[in-house]
Amino acid sequence: MNKNESISGLLSAGEHNLLHSLSVDCVIFGFHDGQLKVLLLKHRHRDLWALPGGFIGREEETDAAAYRVLKERTGLDEVFLQQFHVFGDPGRSNKEFHLQDLRKDGIDVDEDHWLLQRFVTIGYYALVEFSKVTLAPDNISEKCVWWDIHQVPELILDHRTILDRALATLRMQLNYQPIGYNLLPKQFTMPDLQKLYETILDKKLDRRNFQRKMLGFRILLRSNETKKGVAHKAPYLYSFDLKRYNEALNEGLNFGW
Amino acid sequence: MNKNESISGLLSAGEHNLLHSLSVDCVIFGFHDGQLKVLLLKHRHRDLWALPGGFIGREEETDAAAYRVLKERTGLDEVFLQQFHVFGDPGRSNKEFHLQDLRKDGIDVDEDHWLLQRFVTIGYYALVEFSKVTLAPDNISEKCVWWDIHQVPELILDHRTILDRALATLRMQLNYQPIGYNLLPKQFTMPDLQKLYETILDKKLDRRNFQRKMLGFRILLRSNETKKGVAHKAPYLYSFDLKRYNEALNEGLNFGW
Repeated sequence: MNKNESISGLLSAGEHNLLHSLSVDCVIFGFHDGQLKVLLLKHRHRDLWALPGGFIGREEETDAAAYRVLKERTGLDEVFLQQFHVFGDPGRSNKEFHLQDLRKDGIDVDEDHWLLQRFVTIGYYALVEFSKVTLAPDNISEKCVWWDIHQVPELILDHRTILDRALATLRMQLNYQPIGYNLLPKQFTMPDLQKLYETILDKKLDRRNFQRKMLGFRILLRSNETKKGVAHKAPYLYSFDLKRYNEALNEGLNFGW
Repeated sequence: MNKNESISGLLSAGEHNLLHSLSVDCVIFGFHDGQLKVLLLKHRHRDLWALPGGFIGREEETDAAAYRVLKERTGLDEVFLQQFHVFGDPGRSNKEFHLQDLRKDGIDVDEDHWLLQRFVTIGYYALVEFSKVTLAPDNISEKCVWWDIHQVPELILDHRTILDRALATLRMQLNYQPIGYNLLPKQFTMPDLQKLYETILDKKLDRRNFQRKMLGFRILLRSNETKKGVAHKAPYLYSFDLKRYNEALNEGLNFGW
């Protein structure tokens, strides 16, 4: 199926098979070795990039739609997506934007076509270890690329707003949920964990304060081993206590209330 | 306008003026004097209660719709509503439930009427001082009542799930955002503030630990006055430092990252 067949297929099947005012958009953050990136799709006609997004089946659960759309558009699977915000400003939809694109595709649609109507979108985000995942972009987008969070190119429509809000949510999340499982090796040092937090927060943290706080959450197991091949004062190796980690995911980190 | 005129009006105007797959539902928690309550509407035909909810105008911002719906259905105004979750399971909608109600109203609709279709709902919540607000229920519901959180009656459809999720969100929020402004008098004691937290969390907290943590957030101003009319060891009076309080609302409480 080529690009235009994909688009035509979506336009006609969507008339009866998709919800017409609700979509999903995914902000996928990637962490690796002190870098934070975001996954973007190149627009097929414009010098603009987009979050991987799409539509919801008439009888499809909304979270399931987000997982399906992410998989179809980027190849990403086995990612933990979290809803974070609904973007419901009528001004976020832009009929003319889509009409121009479809004209370039050589596809003619009526002004009242479902795709041109207002869409409220549900924002989802996830954080993955980007060196561990394989990308497979759909055939509508030109390519699918990890962009450094400090060098994000211009995005379509309100996608920059969605990205910024997701990043703020991710940072806020550090205050009440544990993070790091699936992002760090099975065993890691306290500096490895601190580097993860510093990368997300984009600032340096105090070493002793960080360690005291982390140990206070009681989600870490300290190994008797220390890191090999380190000259002197070899740092301890830690792993997550998964039972406590999962409890903290559900109930919030123990801030001692 | 009587009840049936209200319903008929909604059904016909909604055909063109409302989004057809998206709604809003509001969970309004009320705090006063050590009690936590939730605002519910009595169903017009059933021995069931419901969260105040409603529909979104074709060109209406989703958050604005939540405020309008809450005002129309309960009279509540000047409340700070926060989105907390989208409920998108297709099984949450129940065509037969609405058909039965409309038959009792003496209103006949087709099986494919917009009201009978699947609705995804956006959940909003707020916490207010319930002794300070005046209720004015709409003319569709029988009445509008504050129910103690420990004695919630049976709710329609998936409204119990929505309520439980909102309560979990409110409790989690205590871990990363300040709370209390507009719920406590302008000046309050540390025990007053602790009572608020204990009521929401539904558990006793350690007095010294609570005070140390609260002062650590640096959102409180201590007055030179102490509480009048207290026999001995009169407690200090505090107020919120609104600049810092609002910063903490936006950036998260300072847990020292």
